[in-house]
Amino acid sequence: MSSNNKLSTESYKGVRDFYPEDMAILNHIFSIWKKSAESYGYQEYNASILEPTELYHAKSGEEIINEQTYTFTDRGDRSVTLRPEMTPTVARMVAARRRDLSMPVRWYSIPNVFRYEKPQRGRLREHFQLNCDIFGIASLDADVEMIALASSIMRNFGAKDEDFEIRISSRQLLKKAFADAGLSDEQSLKMQKLLDKKDKVAEGAFVEEAEKILGRKMGDKEIFIDIVTAGTEVEKAIDALGARGVNNVRFDSSIVRGFDYYTGIVFEVYDTHKDNRRALFGGGRYDGLTSLFEGQSGDAGPLPAVGFGMGDVTIRDFLETHSLLPLYKNPAHIYLAIALTENEADNDSIKAYAETVALALRNHNVNTAVDYSGKKIGDQIKKAAKDDVKYVTVIGADEASSGILKTKNLLTGEETIVDRAGELALFLRTGMKLPKENQ
Amino acid sequence: MSSNNKLSTESYKGVRDFYPEDMAILNHIFSIWKKSAESYGYQEYNASILEPTELYHAKSGEEIINEQTYTFTDRGDRSVTLRPEMTPTVARMVAARRRDLSMPVRWYSIPNVFRYEKPQRGRLREHFQLNCDIFGIASLDADVEMIALASSIMRNFGAKDEDFEIRISSRQLLKKAFADAGLSDEQSLKMQKLLDKKDKVAEGAFVEEAEKILGRKMGDKEIFIDIVTAGTEVEKAIDALGARGVNNVRFDSSIVRGFDYYTGIVFEVYDTHKDNRRALFGGGRYDGLTSLFEGQSGDAGPLPAVGFGMGDVTIRDFLETHSLLPLYKNPAHIYLAIALTENEADNDSIKAYAETVALALRNHNVNTAVDYSGKKIGDQIKKAAKDDVKYVTVIGADEASSGILKTKNLLTGEETIVDRAGELALFLRTGMKLPKENQ
Repeated sequence: MSSNNKLSTESYKGVRDFYPEDMAILNHIFSIWKKSAESYGYQEYNASILEPTELYHAKSGEEIINEQTYTFTDRGDRSVTLRPEMTPTVARMVAARRRDLSMPVRWYSIPNVFRYEKPQRGRLREHFQLNCDIFGIASLDADVEMIALASSIMRNFGAKDEDFEIRISSRQLLKKAFADAGLSDEQSLKMQKLLDKKDKVAEGAFVEEAEKILGRKMGDKEIFIDIVTAGTEVEKAIDALGARGVNNVRFDSSIVRGFDYYTGIVFEVYDTHKDNRRALFGGGRYDGLTSLFEGQSGDAGPLPAVGFGMGDVTIRDFLETHSLLPLYKNPAHIYLAIALTENEADNDSIKAYAETVALALRNHNVNTAVDYSGKKIGDQIKKAAKDDVKYVTVIGADEASSGILKTKNLLTGEETIVDRAGELALFLRTGMKLPKENQ
Repeated sequence: MSSNNKLSTESYKGVRDFYPEDMAILNHIFSIWKKSAESYGYQEYNASILEPTELYHAKSGEEIINEQTYTFTDRGDRSVTLRPEMTPTVARMVAARRRDLSMPVRWYSIPNVFRYEKPQRGRLREHFQLNCDIFGIASLDADVEMIALASSIMRNFGAKDEDFEIRISSRQLLKKAFADAGLSDEQSLKMQKLLDKKDKVAEGAFVEEAEKILGRKMGDKEIFIDIVTAGTEVEKAIDALGARGVNNVRFDSSIVRGFDYYTGIVFEVYDTHKDNRRALFGGGRYDGLTSLFEGQSGDAGPLPAVGFGMGDVTIRDFLETHSLLPLYKNPAHIYLAIALTENEADNDSIKAYAETVALALRNHNVNTAVDYSGKKIGDQIKKAAKDDVKYVTVIGADEASSGILKTKNLLTGEETIVDRAGELALFLRTGMKLPKENQ
């Protein structure tokens, strides 16, 4: 067959294959997310990546729907979108059961989300994203808890407080500041959108665009000077976080967040490393988003909500930059290499014995891989070493008849002799050697 | 706003929302899958759900591509398919790194897969599926390990051997039997496809269709009588499984599996319960599938492979039928109810104290949720009970000033008094009470 007829081994553009080493990193990130969210009592939920397209029309922002989603028509003529973010989904799910759920609801999820974007560093077309949300708390306590949880996740990854900075602002505060400066509602909204893009455009272009919105020349940094946080919820949140031991927080008027649905405090966590000085993730308060859904009785009123989303790609970059990624560990604790003979019947009993050993080890919670490749013993041991399995034991005719097993630590070269699979399991789990060992 | 303008809270048709109770079941299934696969030394991998459509053209079977996939054209005019199964993806990934990977490769994954099917019991449009695969072992050892692993998963779910049955057959054996019976290659292939649907069609329709393929009347059950397993790989596999303690295995000539890529042993696991007598999952050998991909040098030869896929929906049905599902456990070990006063400053110190307690508990790995709702204490305790949190502690002005905490077990009603958060953590984790407690 000519190579022209062959299939490409490449993945679809802008998405990732997770080979075991990459999957282990992803699982490490997931496990820290899970542990951190559950330590605050958050319950895990999930949903399908397929959502009706209209779910995103109201509040995600037109740019996102029109230019950045995977949207298609299914065979039943329904418009379907691969979720670009999780907030509309969680609002939909909470709205559906609002009468049955007792508030406050604390939920988290680790969905994959999709954006049809030009692939670039940290912005793939598919990534995973921790979403934490709390519903039913109108007071600042929820905003403070959410930011404290975000800080706790960073610390659980091994980050020190000086490795990251939490910048907060408030949509209310911005609105008021712009109104006080004489901006119309329309100018105010446009200015917020512009601020959200501040990190992505050059300063000259930013000022030019700002002056276009204002219809006049800007004073030196006037937009930023006029905002006073004293006595506002921003100051209260910073104080409350300080009382909880979270001190790497500061006000930043350029924190807006892209989505239209935010209503109060907004925050972003920034890497402080000089090579990676960028926003890692963020969130904020989005009261009343559930009111978009049917069956929300007027009596119940708009449901308060605060949440954030944290992507796996940016956090992996952060962990790499700060040398916080763990080493790969193969799930197999031990590799059984098999020394075959030229006698088929002997080989059957050698394999049967290897299986007996493997079964006993697995029953002692020792993960065990057996090599049936028939390769040379040296190659089987090389395979175990290459795959980062720590221990190897060779099983051949002698071992099958005597039951005496020798296991080798591939990191140290140390060899240990035991006389049954159960003793081997004990040694692997505890490092204990029985008296008769090492004869 | 009229209700006509409101969004529906329903999910997209044929997919599921996972509320915390459902997510807990899914996580239970995932954790048994993970534990079982890793006990055999399988490494986890994953990939995106988005794949180039051509990946499925060669071997998945035309019916699946044309009628049952989610396929659409992206904004860059590429045809994309939401993966309907994982085998083509894992073959692609192994082919891409065949030179670097040292065989045997043992991999597992828990992907979500998509089928555009009419929703019915156990056949949703999206489900999760454990995939286990071993590459590089041409001998029957790999087939036997794969079936032993499948049996081990069922046992790890708590199933007894009499709760399920493993039925095996062989594509080679079927081919030979049909050739011996005088069928042409085309008749043989059609007959295999028909056998695969045997459970889904009435017996009369089956015989009618078979006679159409054969071009003659059938003798009484002739297709099934003529197949002799003695001395074949099917008999050897059954014997080898018996030697490993897996005895609920039998030959069944109607086991074919739908995909075109199978080449050897095929198997399916059946529920034996009278209310749920159906195939739960299955797999088989698919040597040479990687040869479809570019860069596979002729020297290397076709790569042997065996694998299976096990869906979450059918296994959940099985676990429900056999009463093997665990009870829901809230991730929060304790719920801190907050008794507010009419004095704002007091409330700040009550909340601050609650946060100190929560932080201390979390530092002792006790997952802790705090209620900031401002509801009546009775309602806060009801909320904890409704969400299946086991312990509740009320924190008010007295607790904040004295540090004396009382925790209540909501299952037994038993109350325990401790005098610091650290002691509370000790009690929650070990059940131990210090001497000065219960004064």
